[in-house]
Amino acid sequence: MFNVTVRDHVMIAHSFRGEVFGPAQRLHGATYVVDATFRRAALDADGIVVDIGRATEELHAVLAELAYRNLDEEPAFAGMNTSTEALAQVIADRLAARVHAGALGAAAREVAALVVTLHESHVAWASYERAL
Amino acid sequence: MFNVTVRDHVMIAHSFRGEVFGPAQRLHGATYVVDATFRRAALDADGIVVDIGRATEELHAVLAELAYRNLDEEPAFAGMNTSTEALAQVIADRLAARVHAGALGAAAREVAALVVTLHESHVAWASYERAL
Amino acid sequence: MFNVTVRDHVMIAHSFRGEVFGPAQRLHGATYVVDATFRRAALDADGIVVDIGRATEELHAVLAELAYRNLDEEPAFAGMNTSTEALAQVIADRLAARVHAGALGAAAREVAALVVTLHESHVAWASYERAL
Amino acid sequence: MFNVTVRDHVMIAHSFRGEVFGPAQRLHGATYVVDATFRRAALDADGIVVDIGRATEELHAVLAELAYRNLDEEPAFAGMNTSTEALAQVIADRLAARVHAGALGAAAREVAALVVTLHESHVAWASYERAL
Amino acid sequence: MFNVTVRDHVMIAHSFRGEVFGPAQRLHGATYVVDATFRRAALDADGIVVDIGRATEELHAVLAELAYRNLDEEPAFAGMNTSTEALAQVIADRLAARVHAGALGAAAREVAALVVTLHESHVAWASYERAL
Amino acid sequence: MFNVTVRDHVMIAHSFRGEVFGPAQRLHGATYVVDATFRRAALDADGIVVDIGRATEELHAVLAELAYRNLDEEPAFAGMNTSTEALAQVIADRLAARVHAGALGAAAREVAALVVTLHESHVAWASYERAL
Repeated sequence: MFNVTVRDHVMIAHSFRGEVFGPAQRLHGATYVVDATFRRAALDADGIVVDIGRATEELHAVLAELAYRNLDEEPAFAGMNTSTEALAQVIADRLAARVHAGALGAAAREVAALVVTLHESHVAWASYERAL
Repeated sequence: MFNVTVRDHVMIAHSFRGEVFGPAQRLHGATYVVDATFRRAALDADGIVVDIGRATEELHAVLAELAYRNLDEEPAFAGMNTSTEALAQVIADRLAARVHAGALGAAAREVAALVVTLHESHVAWASYERAL
Repeated sequence: MFNVTVRDHVMIAHSFRGEVFGPAQRLHGATYVVDATFRRAALDADGIVVDIGRATEELHAVLAELAYRNLDEEPAFAGMNTSTEALAQVIADRLAARVHAGALGAAAREVAALVVTLHESHVAWASYERAL
Repeated sequence: MFNVTVRDHVMIAHSFRGEVFGPAQRLHGATYVVDATFRRAALDADGIVVDIGRATEELHAVLAELAYRNLDEEPAFAGMNTSTEALAQVIADRLAARVHAGALGAAAREVAALVVTLHESHVAWASYERAL
Repeated sequence: MFNVTVRDHVMIAHSFRGEVFGPAQRLHGATYVVDATFRRAALDADGIVVDIGRATEELHAVLAELAYRNLDEEPAFAGMNTSTEALAQVIADRLAARVHAGALGAAAREVAALVVTLHESHVAWASYERAL
Repeated sequence: MFNVTVRDHVMIAHSFRGEVFGPAQRLHGATYVVDATFRRAALDADGIVVDIGRATEELHAVLAELAYRNLDEEPAFAGMNTSTEALAQVIADRLAARVHAGALGAAAREVAALVVTLHESHVAWASYERAL
């Protein structure tokens, strides 16, 4: 199995609902350093998993929809906690939709799975893995 | 599948028995930067895998039992080499026992697996994965 | 010259005023991974610059005043942009006041200078250096 | 499952064939920071997965065959793109051959799988996993 | 004193002349992870050292002149070894020229000094500091 | 001013004397990831600060004198606390002696200063700077 990972980041504001979150129930924010991993069993005709340049652009496009925003006011997140792990799923699903739509080219449709990891600090991170 | 990881560290002394260890048969020590990963298939009602704050506290409690100690003198490790990979298992097992005992709350009992990684330097690390 | 550095982090929300900031004029947030460096010409009687444990506690106390807050609503920051570099100065100044007040012990008053570095992402960071 | 990982690096020149590569079709180069992970279900009689010292030496030996070379001129790579993911496979296969040949000792033949990860920059990396 | 640093990277091929370089006399290559630090005594009217977005663009523009090239064939480097430290100076000087030309805006002309650091691997890096 | 830095690591056991050290008064240990920085105003005839290969070897030789040892039993450290900052000085002084003795070649005698940084964990490090 082959994996290719590209990294970018996004800065957002949000708050959480639920006693478990303690002071994080207040409006605060985060920088997420985001890693997107593309997995497939065999390389394509060019000898790659996906084009790293295009993968980087697609990840950046997905993150641009979140960047410099207060997620509490985004209709897409109404009624949910935008926890690090929940956002990993959102980003993975949006990236998967782009791959299905051909954003990484026809060959990239052989990608079997995606993993998206969000680092919220130097001491905590979360990820979500899904089939493509 | 979702993963949440928290990081802490511990500093210990120990020695190894066995020719394969060369100079590491002498009493020496290590800083282990320790990552504990909690895996589960679905998020809980709060939208999280585990509470990162509580997970950090539990990992810290497990590491506190080892911290600033000479592992050669700990009864728990009599007759075994406290290699990086063996300590990863010890820490994972102790953390699993805490999760089973409810230390991360009732919802965390849905956690399916744990991975504990110990970084012994910038060029070597080891991990142990187990079901919960 | 000796330096000792300790690391912690803080998560905040804020927005910027000024066209130069582009989309960062919107309410967003950041994780700052914060390094505080203490400098002095000679070690104290215990052979250290400062006690790393106490230095970590004092840095944590300074960051706790900012943690999980919307800095736009903090009176202390009225009329200023809480840029990464400006926050580095705020944190350095507050840490310096604590050192002057004896929070790190009498020996730590020999500390000659402080540097505070805030990492806002894996690709950007800022710092402020000042005499003590 | 246990994992042990060791890290080294290698600096090479190469070029790519295929429009997808854009300016990387020109002769350029890379530093690859290379992580080799050894996986096995149980520890050996010494309490380890593999001897970290010997694993480091074997990885270094494999990388020495590539180091400070123009891969475009290496017969082993004729007709293929030496992409990061393709090189991960080359290195994993060569390391696997060494393990099979006993380079890590008899006990290491219980190693079940290898993962080789090549970091081409701070924002992109690739890996290849294979059974042993 | 305030510092702001931005990070990017560049991948090049080159060779060295001189016995001291051993096998690096052969054509090989490197990824340089490049940090550009801007230093000034006081913040500008917006409360910043330089605009991080524009600083990142200017650093990227300087690196684009080197990217995916064989430096042995670049007239600018005829007769010199493009060592990590020598390239740090080249990049710092080119970045300084852009700042002088106003690429970071009028306020950025108060920048007092630049430091450029090139990481050639996880175990070696070099930097060059100069006044502006 | 030019800087070149090389990185290695060392694993040791030790204990501290003094109430300030709390539980670290017990025998424990550390991995120190060690960075040695060589500073000089101008490059040598080969276009470098020092030969990175030789600098790495000399740092390794200095660390080998400490590696896998209980520093409490080393005569060189009798009566002193081998704190991270104190060890940074020890390593810098030993490295400086080697440079003075010609270990890095005649050209390296132009090196003006050394900085040695010891990372004791992901959240604490110390350094010592001295003229050569």
